[in-house]
Amino acid sequence: MQVEAEIVATGDELMSGAVVDSNSATICRRLRDHGIRVRRKTMVGDGVGDIETALKEASARARVVIVTGGLGPTEDDRTAAVAAALAGVPLERNAEALAHVKEMFRRFGREMPPNNEKQADVPKGAEILPNPVGTAVGFAMDLQGARAFFTPGVPREMEKMLEEQILPRVDAMRVSAGATTSLATRVVKSYGFGESKVEMELSGIAWPEELTIGYRAKFPEIHLRLYAEGEPAKLTPALARAEAAIRERLGVRVFGVDDETMAGVVGKLLTAKGWTIAVAESCTGGLLGSLLTEVAGSSAWFDRGFITYSNASKTAQLGVKAATIAGEGAVSEAVVREMAAGAREKSGCPIALAITGIAGPGGGTPEKPVGTVWIACATAAGVDSRKLSLPGDRERIRLASAYAAMDLARRHLLGAA
Amino acid sequence: MQVEAEIVATGDELMSGAVVDSNSATICRRLRDHGIRVRRKTMVGDGVGDIETALKEASARARVVIVTGGLGPTEDDRTAAVAAALAGVPLERNAEALAHVKEMFRRFGREMPPNNEKQADVPKGAEILPNPVGTAVGFAMDLQGARAFFTPGVPREMEKMLEEQILPRVDAMRVSAGATTSLATRVVKSYGFGESKVEMELSGIAWPEELTIGYRAKFPEIHLRLYAEGEPAKLTPALARAEAAIRERLGVRVFGVDDETMAGVVGKLLTAKGWTIAVAESCTGGLLGSLLTEVAGSSAWFDRGFITYSNASKTAQLGVKAATIAGEGAVSEAVVREMAAGAREKSGCPIALAITGIAGPGGGTPEKPVGTVWIACATAAGVDSRKLSLPGDRERIRLASAYAAMDLARRHLLGAA
Repeated sequence: MQVEAEIVATGDELMSGAVVDSNSATICRRLRDHGIRVRRKTMVGDGVGDIETALKEASARARVVIVTGGLGPTEDDRTAAVAAALAGVPLERNAEALAHVKEMFRRFGREMPPNNEKQADVPKGAEILPNPVGTAVGFAMDLQGARAFFTPGVPREMEKMLEEQILPRVDAMRVSAGATTSLATRVVKSYGFGESKVEMELSGIAWPEELTIGYRAKFPEIHLRLYAEGEPAKLTPALARAEAAIRERLGVRVFGVDDETMAGVVGKLLTAKGWTIAVAESCTGGLLGSLLTEVAGSSAWFDRGFITYSNASKTAQLGVKAATIAGEGAVSEAVVREMAAGAREKSGCPIALAITGIAGPGGGTPEKPVGTVWIACATAAGVDSRKLSLPGDRERIRLASAYAAMDLARRHLLGAA
Repeated sequence: MQVEAEIVATGDELMSGAVVDSNSATICRRLRDHGIRVRRKTMVGDGVGDIETALKEASARARVVIVTGGLGPTEDDRTAAVAAALAGVPLERNAEALAHVKEMFRRFGREMPPNNEKQADVPKGAEILPNPVGTAVGFAMDLQGARAFFTPGVPREMEKMLEEQILPRVDAMRVSAGATTSLATRVVKSYGFGESKVEMELSGIAWPEELTIGYRAKFPEIHLRLYAEGEPAKLTPALARAEAAIRERLGVRVFGVDDETMAGVVGKLLTAKGWTIAVAESCTGGLLGSLLTEVAGSSAWFDRGFITYSNASKTAQLGVKAATIAGEGAVSEAVVREMAAGAREKSGCPIALAITGIAGPGGGTPEKPVGTVWIACATAAGVDSRKLSLPGDRERIRLASAYAAMDLARRHLLGAA
């Protein structure tokens, strides 16, 4: 039996457009991992009438309702009161919740303003959902035919409550609703093909019957989300079979699974070889270095970078010959090769990357239009250079360039360039 | 009279969590700029029944309904059919729309697959909303008491249609609904205080009666959105008075208005002085350079960067003394000062920035916990160094560090450090 859910997100900041609601997508994704389909999301402001209507409608339709926002200490925060009224119970100061609010203020080293006591007021009979990272406790209660879970709107707090409190309860509901199957998920991440090309390459695969597949474009990556449902013992083998089938079709374009990132994979491959890396960047202006050093612990394998934006800096920092720049232009194969070789030599690193290109909107010519980018990878075996012709605006061209360079390093490290 | 709106966003990708809906926030913000309040947003999948219910409810409640998604060529795209059924009219192949779809394929240099003809089928009597950047045309029609606008779900296409087609029509509706006032908006951007601190600093300001104020935290910036409504001649003076009042309270913490960015303002100040800038980065790993070079045309004032992640690179690239690193540690005032001075000297730029710190999650000690960051700005007047103690995770610490460095440059360029 399929358990269905609805999401109700509340807050004037959502209705003014001040905030993009990322919570709903997170909740949908994680509920789907746990076999629950979200049928509808509703967003309303802080008005009591609007919240009441939304809660009433959602809880009349769905078995599970997840409500975010409106649990703060200010007058605007009215979700608990509305829920209590709708269930026909009074609001009650909850001792467990009050102790929590006080404890959080103590831990932050701040005195609790009196109006924060309000955060301990929950509908009578509600079950408290602890919030280990903020003052607002959540709660769960029956509302019409539904089980409704109330969480703070702050994404970090919502996510922790979802993982630790709500998903285990939802699993139990799924079982008591008669589900006899188990669930498992795996994300397979690819780079190098667009979404429709990935779909085409994978067409005709006989997926294990336990599986359904979802696509997610996270530019410039394409993620495949594998949802498995069935007998527990069959799920891991089914996921492994599907991952192997995808790898067979997409080959080296699959760069990782689940929590792995492109930069993290490059770091892991460098670590395995005991190598360090240096980068030389022109049009990306530091973006490649920034992406690589987003990885915690990257100081073990990221040595240095040269942001050689001006022509003079390419010569001074990397030893690119002024004559090469004058003769071929700063965006050219000859220059990117000298940049990569120079970065490798100056740093002493076994491997170095280089990027030079025209990110736009200005600077393009008929011969070298905006989006013309050269990348190169230097190793002991020599310099490997590639030309890219990238569509899109400045931001996309820069990001696509940095990714192409990381991927070139990954392929060289794998011996699959 | 207040015209109210609702948004209905459709698409299975919104319900699976594959996509974060950023369209709704954009629509809310721009409608509010045009005096329209959004009361509710509803998101449903591609199921006909779910779309129908959402459209029916929204158009019964609001005067304006904006619907995104479901206008593509595939079988899943059913919004037009549902709208037609709800209005009791047939779907009709629209000649203007068909010509548009064909023209877009011609322009992309691709042959039109037969199923794309479907994109020209709109409810009989609907008004076509041209889409200059994609194949899916939008349309507008009366639905129950509401005027409903249908747009593609692709943000770039939706935004263009919103600006060029929908907002002018909504303005006209507002006027014919009896509105005699005009509207204007200004965004004042600040850096340096948190949201509650900004609110506190601005408390007690007697705002012009034409104004309402909205806050938006866009880490690490705080934006104030000023909405003016009244007689046309009064709006610009009211906005100017409010901006002046904010600047008087927040001082140099106001860095720009409307489309200005922190990096863009630094670039403008550099250009005014005829200066170029160099950066030296350790824990930010290129993020500072990347932010500065996001600005189109930054090659006029951004000269180069040194990503000195390893200790050896700090010495080799910037001339930081090995003894300083050994004695004080890489994260120290002495090292950041030598980094800034070295970057200025090696580049020959009149101004240079440096950052060294512990972004975590590892690497902290009791004396130098995670979040300890030193920044410095070197000019002909000498080196100005500052210590930061930043909360948050690796991503936030890095971003906050890069911002603090840009702001330090801005203050030096303004003579307000």
